[in-house]
Amino acid sequence: MAYQYPPTLAKLINELSRLPGLGPKAAQRLAFFLLTEKRQASGELARALLEAESRIHPCPICGNLTDSERCAICADGNRDRGLLCIVESVSDILSLERSQGFSGVYHVLGGVISPLDGVGPEKLNLTGLEARIRENHVTEVIMATNPTVEGEATALYLAKKLKPLGVKVSRLAHGMPVGGNLTYADEATLSLALSGRKEL
Amino acid sequence: MAYQYPPTLAKLINELSRLPGLGPKAAQRLAFFLLTEKRQASGELARALLEAESRIHPCPICGNLTDSERCAICADGNRDRGLLCIVESVSDILSLERSQGFSGVYHVLGGVISPLDGVGPEKLNLTGLEARIRENHVTEVIMATNPTVEGEATALYLAKKLKPLGVKVSRLAHGMPVGGNLTYADEATLSLALSGRKEL
Repeated sequence: MAYQYPPTLAKLINELSRLPGLGPKAAQRLAFFLLTEKRQASGELARALLEAESRIHPCPICGNLTDSERCAICADGNRDRGLLCIVESVSDILSLERSQGFSGVYHVLGGVISPLDGVGPEKLNLTGLEARIRENHVTEVIMATNPTVEGEATALYLAKKLKPLGVKVSRLAHGMPVGGNLTYADEATLSLALSGRKEL
Repeated sequence: MAYQYPPTLAKLINELSRLPGLGPKAAQRLAFFLLTEKRQASGELARALLEAESRIHPCPICGNLTDSERCAICADGNRDRGLLCIVESVSDILSLERSQGFSGVYHVLGGVISPLDGVGPEKLNLTGLEARIRENHVTEVIMATNPTVEGEATALYLAKKLKPLGVKVSRLAHGMPVGGNLTYADEATLSLALSGRKEL
């Protein structure tokens, strides 16, 4: 019979290879690293995983991840509850917060509408969104889904759904990224940068 | 104060980003995946890590990873103990075993000599190697370190050290990989493939 890894090792490699972006070879490399070079790292990682699994949960208001009753942004009394930014995923919140250009609150969809992947609006985190807009007297909803086909479709779908509530719905601007180069910009971005030009 | 992740989540991202090949962004993506899409996967991964950490250890004879007293290869009575293959790391054993071209036993160095990284021969797993060669009447030692500068240097160092024991020391052949293309082969490989040519 061909040589095989001991079952405990095979199990670890299998669990690691199920993570996104890790193939069987990378999982194998990680397992060997954890069991040879950095043995105590595997224990620390296991503890961090178990602690995060037991303590981290979605914020019941916006869907951001938190270890408290509400997330730090929803709990912050200084944030403008009348300005709501809708994002695809939790990691988008940190990106927007880093820009320091937003003082409102968020709503995490947990995905985008993608018929090809079988994801319809019913699979998005939309429960409570309309009630939230009404109760907090939201004046503007910023659609900050990614500038992809699915992100645009989701933004359009939600805009149509939310406008009857009497709220202004806006979309992040498209255009040239800062530090970008016209030579390497794609046609679609350049076309949107042109049509969205501003007077100086 | 700028928005930050809850400490439990920040800890998990930090632990993940310490793994080889994972930067902060990839670690963040993994953490979100484990805490949102696949919550039970994080518990399973944690358990697999803890079980592997407590049960997997290096084989006292060859340095391969095992959950038994000796590794499956050292415990196999059908392997030729007179033929010893020296490899850099545990993962190389599986690669060689998959080739089904070797029936001897292994010795894992756990690294290569690399003065630039401060790794001298004293940091390699060489304890017991000479005793093993003597006691098992090893007739041939195959140096299967990688065909890199460090791998070659390590092979030459060990060959010099082991030859006085009266053992034949050989090196894996260099040449064109199967399915390779002359157009894309590097000069060093082609040069070695030419000088190592065999009569048909």
